[in-house]
Amino acid sequence: MTDERLARAALTRLTEPADLRVAGALAQVGAVRLYDDILAQQAQGGVGADAAVRLDSVDPARELERAEHRGIRFVIPGDTEWPTQLDDLGHAEPVSELGGVPIGLWVRGPVRLDHLADSTAIVGSRTSTTYGEHVAAEIAAGVARAGHCVVSGAAFGIDQAAHRGALALDQPSVAVLACGVDRAYPTAHRNLLEHMAQVGAVVSEVPLGCAPLKVRFLARNRLIAGLTRGTVVVEAAIRSGALNTAGWAESLSRPVMGVPGAVTSAQSQGVHDRIRRGAASLVTGPHDVLEVIGGMGDHQQEPPREPERPRDRLTRRHHRVLEAVPVHQPAPLASIAATAGVGLLEVQTALTYLAGRGFVDRAGTGWRLAEGTRR
Amino acid sequence: MTDERLARAALTRLTEPADLRVAGALAQVGAVRLYDDILAQQAQGGVGADAAVRLDSVDPARELERAEHRGIRFVIPGDTEWPTQLDDLGHAEPVSELGGVPIGLWVRGPVRLDHLADSTAIVGSRTSTTYGEHVAAEIAAGVARAGHCVVSGAAFGIDQAAHRGALALDQPSVAVLACGVDRAYPTAHRNLLEHMAQVGAVVSEVPLGCAPLKVRFLARNRLIAGLTRGTVVVEAAIRSGALNTAGWAESLSRPVMGVPGAVTSAQSQGVHDRIRRGAASLVTGPHDVLEVIGGMGDHQQEPPREPERPRDRLTRRHHRVLEAVPVHQPAPLASIAATAGVGLLEVQTALTYLAGRGFVDRAGTGWRLAEGTRR
Repeated sequence: MTDERLARAALTRLTEPADLRVAGALAQVGAVRLYDDILAQQAQGGVGADAAVRLDSVDPARELERAEHRGIRFVIPGDTEWPTQLDDLGHAEPVSELGGVPIGLWVRGPVRLDHLADSTAIVGSRTSTTYGEHVAAEIAAGVARAGHCVVSGAAFGIDQAAHRGALALDQPSVAVLACGVDRAYPTAHRNLLEHMAQVGAVVSEVPLGCAPLKVRFLARNRLIAGLTRGTVVVEAAIRSGALNTAGWAESLSRPVMGVPGAVTSAQSQGVHDRIRRGAASLVTGPHDVLEVIGGMGDHQQEPPREPERPRDRLTRRHHRVLEAVPVHQPAPLASIAATAGVGLLEVQTALTYLAGRGFVDRAGTGWRLAEGTRR
Repeated sequence: MTDERLARAALTRLTEPADLRVAGALAQVGAVRLYDDILAQQAQGGVGADAAVRLDSVDPARELERAEHRGIRFVIPGDTEWPTQLDDLGHAEPVSELGGVPIGLWVRGPVRLDHLADSTAIVGSRTSTTYGEHVAAEIAAGVARAGHCVVSGAAFGIDQAAHRGALALDQPSVAVLACGVDRAYPTAHRNLLEHMAQVGAVVSEVPLGCAPLKVRFLARNRLIAGLTRGTVVVEAAIRSGALNTAGWAESLSRPVMGVPGAVTSAQSQGVHDRIRRGAASLVTGPHDVLEVIGGMGDHQQEPPREPERPRDRLTRRHHRVLEAVPVHQPAPLASIAATAGVGLLEVQTALTYLAGRGFVDRAGTGWRLAEGTRR
């Protein structure tokens, strides 16, 4: 047990996550010195006063032991498992007055955090629609099938639909919580979280037992954006927390993707607003997402097309002639030419060509559509 | 009656619209000379051969007389009513091998074409959904109320919903047809077209009596894009003709706007594809459209917001303290401070502030939430 690990474990207990003053002090003096200063009641800039009120509760050695006993590890910068993409948070513009690289991460589950570099965040409204949940699960399944771990917040609505979409394919999924990883929030998702702890991971920067306070949700959102290569917002009303996650992805210069919906649905309003302002790109399914996060031209998709029909192979001039041929009552060459507005010789050639391909039939001295061509 | 007008009337009968060879010949030798060449069977480059098959049917003086008798006028370049924005078609990249400034326009109805410079095209799928029709009518109403004439193609589905949305507010609307303006296509829209001829206008570049051939729809689409300041696509499947109109607007460097919908709806697939590729901007209602076509910062809209709540005025630190105050059982200062992770002195000040604004109550030696604050 290094002093660094003990100090960081203690600091996650003494401070609230994403406190820019704490991040600043950490960068300036390091974890060990900051912890010592707090213990000596000499920490600068308000950090000391805030931490002092929790000094009674801190015992990092025992805390780490208890965690280990429960199969929970504490991952800190410098560990081989440390997800270095989180270090970008040290340079990102703060969102909602919060920010900074986390002090450390409490982790429960087999998925290693250093394997999340190409993971995808799928987030959205808790009060989602059936439509939104369906699309979230579809996108999660497609993204997971392509080997990208799905990261979300285990909330009601879109989050849980995304986790389940990946888990349904026996792919791992990672939940980042605003409370301790030993707690189930929301409690209705206890089984879901347990399942993720078995096959994926449950992650938090607050220590065991901590409650999901509001400020912790905002701090948590930056981890979801920071751990992943891109963030998909499936549904979000104007005030949705999912837009906070999207804001973090934007602040980190990571791709933000939005799934459109009916303009009459309040749940899509926040997403449309972001797409409209160019802050998110529109995605309609897993292929679009993979095209954005895949990078290097993987998953570049063909524009969608309908299957080609025999008529598609005709020239525009052939079409003009074909359209001038009557359905039942045969018409002479000159009449077809006048209707089409195409010269006589060309019409003659075209009719022969069209007859050869079964589009028209000669009937007496005139022409009419072949039976299969009639609509 | 000038020779120019007679020649152009004859040419609309002799040629198909949007024929690039005709547009080229017109630009090179003018309408009078081109008509003379066709009559003398000396027109160049295939135009002569095509026109020759219709020479029997041409009598422009009588045609113009008949039109005038029926209240239909023939507007040509140089007329004060000529919508000069159509001249851009002379420089636009061809779409589907078609292009060019129209030879002239047959018009029925009181709206003057030179008043359409700030009009808006609203187009979309014929096989629209109830959702799409609702949104088309809403956008048309909002755009028309702001003084922009709604231009569309009078087709089933989105087109008719757009026309009706404007007409319902007693605002004029303009239909551009692929057949003669004396014909009703689709026939089910006879009353709708009659109404537009009374209060708006019905426009076509093909002369009276002409049938709505396929090539004429593609040619007509360029006029819808060319007459208007911007084109809104409400719903469009991947192969929808509305995307052809959007392609024309793009080719003319006019704004293309798309209304999103469910990603599970085939009717929105073509729109999403355009937005995704940056070929259309996302619009959710008339305000967005007005912001795009209004120009010069008119109609710049505020980002949508929910109404402010009293809690919104608290600082983030106040929120942290407030969240640490118990609902029923009062807690002492030190306990609230430890939960919030905020220094003792600051918590004391915050609680006094919050009590003054009715968020918390002092109870004995502790604090708890005020009744109105409990959720």
